[in-house]
Amino acid sequence: MKKGRIEAFSDGVIAIIITIMVLELKVPHEKNELKDLMPLLPVFLSYVLSFIYVGIYWNNHHHMFTAVNRVNGSVLWANLHLLFWLSMIPFATAWMGENHFAPAPVAIYGGVLLMNSIAYFILMSILVKHHGNESLLAKAVGSDLKGKLSTACYILAIPLAYVSTWISGGLFVLVALIWLIPDRRIENVLHDVEDEA
Amino acid sequence: MKKGRIEAFSDGVIAIIITIMVLELKVPHEKNELKDLMPLLPVFLSYVLSFIYVGIYWNNHHHMFTAVNRVNGSVLWANLHLLFWLSMIPFATAWMGENHFAPAPVAIYGGVLLMNSIAYFILMSILVKHHGNESLLAKAVGSDLKGKLSTACYILAIPLAYVSTWISGGLFVLVALIWLIPDRRIENVLHDVEDEA
Amino acid sequence: MKKGRIEAFSDGVIAIIITIMVLELKVPHEKNELKDLMPLLPVFLSYVLSFIYVGIYWNNHHHMFTAVNRVNGSVLWANLHLLFWLSMIPFATAWMGENHFAPAPVAIYGGVLLMNSIAYFILMSILVKHHGNESLLAKAVGSDLKGKLSTACYILAIPLAYVSTWISGGLFVLVALIWLIPDRRIENVLHDVEDEA
Amino acid sequence: MKKGRIEAFSDGVIAIIITIMVLELKVPHEKNELKDLMPLLPVFLSYVLSFIYVGIYWNNHHHMFTAVNRVNGSVLWANLHLLFWLSMIPFATAWMGENHFAPAPVAIYGGVLLMNSIAYFILMSILVKHHGNESLLAKAVGSDLKGKLSTACYILAIPLAYVSTWISGGLFVLVALIWLIPDRRIENVLHDVEDEA
Repeated sequence: MKKGRIEAFSDGVIAIIITIMVLELKVPHEKNELKDLMPLLPVFLSYVLSFIYVGIYWNNHHHMFTAVNRVNGSVLWANLHLLFWLSMIPFATAWMGENHFAPAPVAIYGGVLLMNSIAYFILMSILVKHHGNESLLAKAVGSDLKGKLSTACYILAIPLAYVSTWISGGLFVLVALIWLIPDRRIENVLHDVEDEA
Repeated sequence: MKKGRIEAFSDGVIAIIITIMVLELKVPHEKNELKDLMPLLPVFLSYVLSFIYVGIYWNNHHHMFTAVNRVNGSVLWANLHLLFWLSMIPFATAWMGENHFAPAPVAIYGGVLLMNSIAYFILMSILVKHHGNESLLAKAVGSDLKGKLSTACYILAIPLAYVSTWISGGLFVLVALIWLIPDRRIENVLHDVEDEA
Repeated sequence: MKKGRIEAFSDGVIAIIITIMVLELKVPHEKNELKDLMPLLPVFLSYVLSFIYVGIYWNNHHHMFTAVNRVNGSVLWANLHLLFWLSMIPFATAWMGENHFAPAPVAIYGGVLLMNSIAYFILMSILVKHHGNESLLAKAVGSDLKGKLSTACYILAIPLAYVSTWISGGLFVLVALIWLIPDRRIENVLHDVEDEA
Repeated sequence: MKKGRIEAFSDGVIAIIITIMVLELKVPHEKNELKDLMPLLPVFLSYVLSFIYVGIYWNNHHHMFTAVNRVNGSVLWANLHLLFWLSMIPFATAWMGENHFAPAPVAIYGGVLLMNSIAYFILMSILVKHHGNESLLAKAVGSDLKGKLSTACYILAIPLAYVSTWISGGLFVLVALIWLIPDRRIENVLHDVEDEA
């Protein structure tokens, strides 16, 4: 089974998710001054954060599938499972933004991010198992330190939302920064292999 | 006529359908506690069920077209007919979830699933006829036992919704489980052919 | 310039348009009986009609580009112009369905279809001019009898909506039927060329 | 890293943005005469303008990536940054149209266009740096006179919205016209290279 169509379908769903979120940014009706945009600021900020998160997932998905040779039924379903949790991000983003970062919405946002990181881990594990421990993919993924660190941050952020939503928010931004630093793991292994060949 | 663009268009429509459903999951306005999410639970559950159904259709569509060599005008329209009924799933899902699984919405949901299974059967039949009974596709489809069983379940689920929506709901979950068990038919035939070659 | 990306972009926009229309089919809130769906019938019927129309445009676009070898800036803009008018179809459909086929919405619907047929004609003319009168594309398009007939029907349907919306509606259905009969022009010419080679 | 998937993802997002805007064109409920469409005229006009702008970005993106050979992590993020600002266009368009071109919405619209032109400039600069000053891409981009002129117009249009929104609107239309005139730069360089080979 070819990987092309699973990439195309994932691109389609992720493109829709990242664009749908902006629909939550409702125009302030019957108001037309700059200050009328101020109440939208928390919604806008949570949109920016989620845009970056979905962008990170697309980037990582893109990188991982570059090293993938073949897919099977389990991969298709593990990928759909990831797309399901990605599609919950706009809902969690809207609830968090609309309630100006209240504890429960922030905890739910953390929960959705946690489910996404678990779904990504499952997809990665199935792909690695399918390709073997000696595969290019297995080497490229390595110990997945960043992934584990992110998951730990989400687990911390959920209960801490009831202590201070600033801590949880800080953890979300921290994880985003970890991933925004270019991930050279897969790129490097790919280059090494090309150099050896 | 190439099959590439019909696959790309179908991927696009199915990606939109699967993602649009989440738009029905409206944020509880002016409420920011975990318990405020409870009334959304039936909507969420019907969304999960429909996500799985649309995922199954995408999976099966993907598998079937792997074995397809050529398409014609009839295939294009049979495919559009299937996409039409798939695009009715978000509507039926929303009505069922919003009314907490009341009889009529459950029956309508079953009716939409029935129309989808009929549309899929028509598409499959046209493709098999176009490729011939000795084709790889015809062998891969075989007796289509799962398809016939699913159609029977939908036909039962529609009137039974007026007896007990739990029975209908159980039938919908049962059909989903039948298909979630990986369908090795087409994969196996493809492998056999590769082995023989 | 390659035609691949213009096809992919058009597929994306048309997939969204055809799927967005279903969003206009709003769930009857706080109502859960079959009879509550009855007021939706005109909306549903106008959705079916528009789904078929957009499907026809996708089909014809698909066929035409099969015979296209190269594109330029004029083709990109003529194509975007067509996509613009296609994207007005959901609006016209919703207004017509919501008002149970009142004269003005029916006339506007006819006007949007007219603009689409003009935009398609412009795109076709630019492509034919770009490829030359002896090209495969020029032969495949031929006299474009169906296209001219459709345009004439739309021009008639607009004023006739104020006489009887049944006549206009009948004309819209008639045009759809004309196109649903498989268009063998381009397919035939393509086959002839293959046979000669 | 291949450029194919970044093109496909960008096409998906831009296709959604350009189509989503029409959702803001709400049907006039419980009104069914032609004159009921009149209040929609400013919304329609701002939709047309934004459709052309997004079309211009898609066109330029398409042209630029034709001359691109390879992408890296920085390119992916610079591209996502551009897609973010493109996705703000429907919001700005709706606010401007709904308020019949009041000063603040017009200034915000100019601000969003300015951010888009900056994001495009960043993406272009990273691509040129990645390919080298002697590359086909660098030659094709050249001095980017049109881009600089557009940016200057947006910077002027923002404060001038508080003097007269007609001036700002005129500047937006002027920039659109500058780009609608086919951009032969990249096409010409590509042709020259082909001729030399």
